[in-house]
Amino acid sequence: MNKPIADFRSDNSGRVAPELIAALATANAGTALGYGGDPWTAELQNRFAELFETPVRVFPVPTGTAANALSLAAVCPSFGAVYCSTDAHINTSEGNAVGFFSGGVRMAAIPGSHGKIDAQMLERAIASAGVGLANKAQPAAVNIVQSTDLGAVYSLDEVAATSQVAHAHGLKVHMDGARIANAVARLGCTPAQATWKSGVDILSFGITKNGGLLADAIVVFTPDVATDIGFHLRRAGAVWSKMRFASAQILAYVEDGLWLRLAGHANDAAARIATRIRPLAGVSLSAPVEANVLFVEMAPHALTALQEEGILFQRRGPGLGRFVCRWDTSAAEQDALVAAITRASAMGEHPLPRNVELHGEHRA
Amino acid sequence: MNKPIADFRSDNSGRVAPELIAALATANAGTALGYGGDPWTAELQNRFAELFETPVRVFPVPTGTAANALSLAAVCPSFGAVYCSTDAHINTSEGNAVGFFSGGVRMAAIPGSHGKIDAQMLERAIASAGVGLANKAQPAAVNIVQSTDLGAVYSLDEVAATSQVAHAHGLKVHMDGARIANAVARLGCTPAQATWKSGVDILSFGITKNGGLLADAIVVFTPDVATDIGFHLRRAGAVWSKMRFASAQILAYVEDGLWLRLAGHANDAAARIATRIRPLAGVSLSAPVEANVLFVEMAPHALTALQEEGILFQRRGPGLGRFVCRWDTSAAEQDALVAAITRASAMGEHPLPRNVELHGEHRA
Amino acid sequence: MNKPIADFRSDNSGRVAPELIAALATANAGTALGYGGDPWTAELQNRFAELFETPVRVFPVPTGTAANALSLAAVCPSFGAVYCSTDAHINTSEGNAVGFFSGGVRMAAIPGSHGKIDAQMLERAIASAGVGLANKAQPAAVNIVQSTDLGAVYSLDEVAATSQVAHAHGLKVHMDGARIANAVARLGCTPAQATWKSGVDILSFGITKNGGLLADAIVVFTPDVATDIGFHLRRAGAVWSKMRFASAQILAYVEDGLWLRLAGHANDAAARIATRIRPLAGVSLSAPVEANVLFVEMAPHALTALQEEGILFQRRGPGLGRFVCRWDTSAAEQDALVAAITRASAMGEHPLPRNVELHGEHRA
Amino acid sequence: MNKPIADFRSDNSGRVAPELIAALATANAGTALGYGGDPWTAELQNRFAELFETPVRVFPVPTGTAANALSLAAVCPSFGAVYCSTDAHINTSEGNAVGFFSGGVRMAAIPGSHGKIDAQMLERAIASAGVGLANKAQPAAVNIVQSTDLGAVYSLDEVAATSQVAHAHGLKVHMDGARIANAVARLGCTPAQATWKSGVDILSFGITKNGGLLADAIVVFTPDVATDIGFHLRRAGAVWSKMRFASAQILAYVEDGLWLRLAGHANDAAARIATRIRPLAGVSLSAPVEANVLFVEMAPHALTALQEEGILFQRRGPGLGRFVCRWDTSAAEQDALVAAITRASAMGEHPLPRNVELHGEHRA
Repeated sequence: MNKPIADFRSDNSGRVAPELIAALATANAGTALGYGGDPWTAELQNRFAELFETPVRVFPVPTGTAANALSLAAVCPSFGAVYCSTDAHINTSEGNAVGFFSGGVRMAAIPGSHGKIDAQMLERAIASAGVGLANKAQPAAVNIVQSTDLGAVYSLDEVAATSQVAHAHGLKVHMDGARIANAVARLGCTPAQATWKSGVDILSFGITKNGGLLADAIVVFTPDVATDIGFHLRRAGAVWSKMRFASAQILAYVEDGLWLRLAGHANDAAARIATRIRPLAGVSLSAPVEANVLFVEMAPHALTALQEEGILFQRRGPGLGRFVCRWDTSAAEQDALVAAITRASAMGEHPLPRNVELHGEHRA
Repeated sequence: MNKPIADFRSDNSGRVAPELIAALATANAGTALGYGGDPWTAELQNRFAELFETPVRVFPVPTGTAANALSLAAVCPSFGAVYCSTDAHINTSEGNAVGFFSGGVRMAAIPGSHGKIDAQMLERAIASAGVGLANKAQPAAVNIVQSTDLGAVYSLDEVAATSQVAHAHGLKVHMDGARIANAVARLGCTPAQATWKSGVDILSFGITKNGGLLADAIVVFTPDVATDIGFHLRRAGAVWSKMRFASAQILAYVEDGLWLRLAGHANDAAARIATRIRPLAGVSLSAPVEANVLFVEMAPHALTALQEEGILFQRRGPGLGRFVCRWDTSAAEQDALVAAITRASAMGEHPLPRNVELHGEHRA
Repeated sequence: MNKPIADFRSDNSGRVAPELIAALATANAGTALGYGGDPWTAELQNRFAELFETPVRVFPVPTGTAANALSLAAVCPSFGAVYCSTDAHINTSEGNAVGFFSGGVRMAAIPGSHGKIDAQMLERAIASAGVGLANKAQPAAVNIVQSTDLGAVYSLDEVAATSQVAHAHGLKVHMDGARIANAVARLGCTPAQATWKSGVDILSFGITKNGGLLADAIVVFTPDVATDIGFHLRRAGAVWSKMRFASAQILAYVEDGLWLRLAGHANDAAARIATRIRPLAGVSLSAPVEANVLFVEMAPHALTALQEEGILFQRRGPGLGRFVCRWDTSAAEQDALVAAITRASAMGEHPLPRNVELHGEHRA
Repeated sequence: MNKPIADFRSDNSGRVAPELIAALATANAGTALGYGGDPWTAELQNRFAELFETPVRVFPVPTGTAANALSLAAVCPSFGAVYCSTDAHINTSEGNAVGFFSGGVRMAAIPGSHGKIDAQMLERAIASAGVGLANKAQPAAVNIVQSTDLGAVYSLDEVAATSQVAHAHGLKVHMDGARIANAVARLGCTPAQATWKSGVDILSFGITKNGGLLADAIVVFTPDVATDIGFHLRRAGAVWSKMRFASAQILAYVEDGLWLRLAGHANDAAARIATRIRPLAGVSLSAPVEANVLFVEMAPHALTALQEEGILFQRRGPGLGRFVCRWDTSAAEQDALVAAITRASAMGEHPLPRNVELHGEHRA
């Protein structure tokens, strides 16, 4: 394999936005009370209330998995069920985190297109779940991933429709916003519209994938949801004593719309690539490219050729590759990918490729 | 109350060592595989093997609570018991984290002096614990806090004696090293001597309190201990995708002995203050000052006078204050504290002070 | 609705075999050490070793749910996955018990016919599960329900094939034998053939549904599986102090083949009913009738007519009824059911029935 | 050692009251809906409402450990603390059940005399617990053992005083009534006075130790406590499908005051023994004999002599024996014990006895 020439493995393989490191340095003056008793964390509450146009509670947490699992554990009883897309990150890629934090909550996967939950399927699933029957996991929460794990973006109406089904049955709505910035940038809506105005009760506000460093956040919109979340977070070891360095970077992240500019860059890169490869024969996009992720179907040997050229990406199957654009994906990387796909798509028939290797990043 | 003039509330209220922020900036170049698949994390393994003179596994984690609870959960079955000092942080200050991560493990508090476990008391407790009886929590691990929560430092012999008791009964030895740097600096020993050479199987390697930012680490010495810890960490949401920014700062932290210099400064500050206040009438130190923490007993109104002068510290009782020196505690702060204590100790009799307020830092 | 004339709701709605109540009375003499330290429990170990032709450990437990969840928790790490049929009782009808007892284990549903796991589908699922990847639940155990929740019976070859796949990947094989007696009676094999000789490591040995009272049992075949299960059971509150009354009844249950005679009666009743209704127009059996349970498809109004005549059964859908034969299902009940189905199947077209009511038995 | 001549090991080593087995036989007619949907369980609700003179919810459960741990888990959040006597059964003898069922709840032991909680110590402990601080386990429930594990009985005033402290701080009051019958018989009060009229919110109603078989019960007095307990019980595998056989025996147990007659016999036996041995030199009772349990202090060799004569009891230390009277302890057993103690107390000096053996009943 050649030297890597472009990296589309994940948005978490990218850099931190320099503004955030600058904010850390600026915050690194004087002393501050620990565990969130500092001025930055207080300011964060106010800043997010403005950002979301409503009173909120914001809790910086280490990872998106912690944000998701702790949010869901805070709103679900241990005998509950969480409804999510079959493709949802909590269902496919977070170990048994939700079950662990919640004391055994059941994940109920709901079909839908491109990583979304179909609201009608959700309605049907809840209706037949056996509410009130002790032998059945009780419907408790819905998990909406925005943007989805397959690169699509729920419209506001779609979020609202899903939320309405949930609320009609007494479930809480959790949004896994690991890529919420990409969704808001795409939708061109306000953060409020994307979330609580569309029915979201509690949000995993993703930062890491979009230029952050070691921190994401939980945002609670509905006051009577998650009243005890501070206790849950602490017993989960998810509360930093030097919280100011989380809060300060998150303040910088949303300052002057930085987060949306970063996401906009990633979205634009993905859109540009999509536009250029869509016409190619032998290349198809298996999901709409509405955020910063492309799922590209090509002949297996063509995908292997990309890898051998030095294009880094996640191979999801013999003939399916996931390509993620970052806030700092360069024009050169975009060009390199398009060029490589163009070349590969023009290749003739080929023997089967070597076995596909899984990336080592998740090895325990 | 006057404007704060010196801050002795906690070592977590201090700044980050600038070398660590510089390391973040340096690491912020190019792309890197997520979840620890990056070169910094690989290098961290090698660097700690050198530092500890033995092969180890190092896992950066967000907090000391996560480090402690995940370490103990990894070495204790859910029907087990963890033996710790009555004053141990896991016993007094980490919510129900150990019980949560372990599925209900019992904490068995053992007396001792100044936050230590008395090895003979430990022996007696394990011997009468009911090994093999299903109605009794089964002895599984010992938790040693080094330096202790009361500011003392175990001698190497004391650690070894406690470890011997543990190992003789088949228990694992976990060291809560939230302030391990202060202990190693004090003891003048090697990191290896302080830990595995004295019987420690798994270590919470504290960084946050000594100039770190958002990261501590678990260090596994005994290969067959905690074989599955990578899985436990991931399901606990304690594995960052952008791990390089944790590993890079930890590499900087141990580079050229920085960690021991930082801790040495904090220790020296505490020692100097102790030397200056010990002779004062009406002032006594309730625990040996061997690391960076002082427990000062004074008349309640005298402690209140300190607070009113603008000295920040943690009031542990009407007549007991905890004063913590940081790596960046200034000479001016030391002088201010000594002067204030000197003045307060010279005060005459006084009515009882107003009710003591708890600090707000832990409010949920 | 008429007065009930026949009850096919469940095998747990039946009586206790009189031999078991007699055994309780007989055991009710003198004193006996608690928590299983009594002679009956010791004898139970020997008796089951004979019954299964191999050394075993037998643990009487209160319910089938406890037997299943504790067995699985004993063989699965908290970061593991349990593979089971989509229709498996643990997947559909035991609340979140498996997740609870195991600390969050994931249930992975595998398709197959009539409540069975298809061994090839299992192979495929495990192969793509991401063994070694910390973000994926790790394959840990397979759950085989024998006889199945849909009334079918695995052949010995089918059990062996499923076990082979499991063992080839290092998974343990758990058999949910809530109706193991019905399966053994049907297969005409030895208990050993039905279980460990076909690869089963640990068995939930059902008694309740087949004439028992307040007790089922866990049987451990593979010594190094579930070594700590005694501790797990005790912390789960699943160990009776007056264990002799569980063990004595289980001894009576297997004495002189009583358990197989009881199950044989139930199987025969089901088979006879099946034979008589199979020819009827408008009636079909949606699953093979190989044990004591029939799934009958009829027009919704015909099923409603049965209910109105006083036939008790579980309505699984508008046009699907589950009819369970008990060890004490009488000839009169069988005749009543066949007659009612015959009449109902001869009914003409009809308006839609009233809404189907769920039985109240599971209301929390 | 001689053949056993009298058994004082535990009240769980005794027989079942014949009335209960008769009730099982009587209930064994016809079919009944499972999981508590049967007439006996419905009647049980009514019967206990009469018995306790207030609406209650009654849940038969397999064991006292399940009753205790599920009651406490139902009223405590996972970040909570349960206050109990140092000698409380949940603290000494139920494995890690409370921690397991509750997701890690902390047990906080409170001193007091003879297995009671001292109300003033409780007040002090709660007042200094750090309510509202996320790093502290939050006070959630108090566990009162009535009669206590050391054979004493709380007066109604003592229960009320403890409950008042609990309620004043917002904690729930759980009574572990493994021996509630002995306490009510002793106090000569009504069941209502012993429980909710003295502030008890939820009760583990013990049956097993007082003539029961495989069943105890949870009784909920305060409607808004434990609203979801039905779900908790089911996911814990603690709900029998053939519930009628639990409910029928519990109905028989309280019929015409049987439970109090049984307990009265056990209490009387203990009182008679106490009266006869109290005057003996070298014999002392380390706790008041107010229920059915005696703690006898004698020289170690004298206790050993008792064992060698064939008196069965639980040795709690070299010079301390626990002797439990059962509902069916015979006059001959009482005489044998008194005679043996009389003989042993008259023995001269003696070499130290052989090592004391723990009973095997709890071996895992």
